[in-house]
Amino acid sequence: MPDVTDRPAHMTIYVCVTCRQADEPLEPRSARSGARLFVDLSAKAGAGTRIVPVECLSVCKRPCTVSFAAPGKWTYVYGDLPPETSASIILAGAQLFEAAPDGVIPWKLRPEALKRGVVARIPPLVPAPSSAENAA
Amino acid sequence: MPDVTDRPAHMTIYVCVTCRQADEPLEPRSARSGARLFVDLSAKAGAGTRIVPVECLSVCKRPCTVSFAAPGKWTYVYGDLPPETSASIILAGAQLFEAAPDGVIPWKLRPEALKRGVVARIPPLVPAPSSAENAA
Repeated sequence: MPDVTDRPAHMTIYVCVTCRQADEPLEPRSARSGARLFVDLSAKAGAGTRIVPVECLSVCKRPCTVSFAAPGKWTYVYGDLPPETSASIILAGAQLFEAAPDGVIPWKLRPEALKRGVVARIPPLVPAPSSAENAA
Repeated sequence: MPDVTDRPAHMTIYVCVTCRQADEPLEPRSARSGARLFVDLSAKAGAGTRIVPVECLSVCKRPCTVSFAAPGKWTYVYGDLPPETSASIILAGAQLFEAAPDGVIPWKLRPEALKRGVVARIPPLVPAPSSAENAA
């Protein structure tokens, strides 16, 4: 039985499955742009990549939307990703995110769609220092 | 000596200190809208609230920008927050975030500025299930 505790923590790609273009019908939900992008990403991703569907990333004006997250790394949110053509770009970006120790992909290496489509980034969540806890 | 391990994990308010309005000069950096909001928030926050300055949350078109984050909760990013008037609203929102077990503030309780200003939200990062690790 493998010792999983020694493995590097893998990243997660969150995919907003409720994302839809303005001219798309609400139903069926499985036909929405976000749901279709999730299916395409899941089909194209390797076994080690964790693709997780999310009911709304709150970036409704910039479909489709995904997020890269991993323990100890910056979290990134990207939008403006067309469902038909974005899976391979997202997976290439995810590989670069995995390779970056802090999750910050060097600008020159970043795919154009991820440069233009960045919505937000959030630092890695670290526990409050014990000195601050004691001072409270 | 207190046992800090039994305490609930406190939230962090990240404040983008590089945020500036389009008509603001680049220098001095301490005069930028984001830097001024950070100073105001730090002055008004209670001792238990962790306010952390960040060099760019990548929401440059919607200053000022903050993020609420805590272990096991959804992370939220908010923008369009004027530096002069937003500290008390942000701190009220932060109290509601602390009170919400998953970090999702009930819509009716959410301050208007946080309804309008939401930029993105990201689910809590959970470790990959062991079954998926074993199947790889």
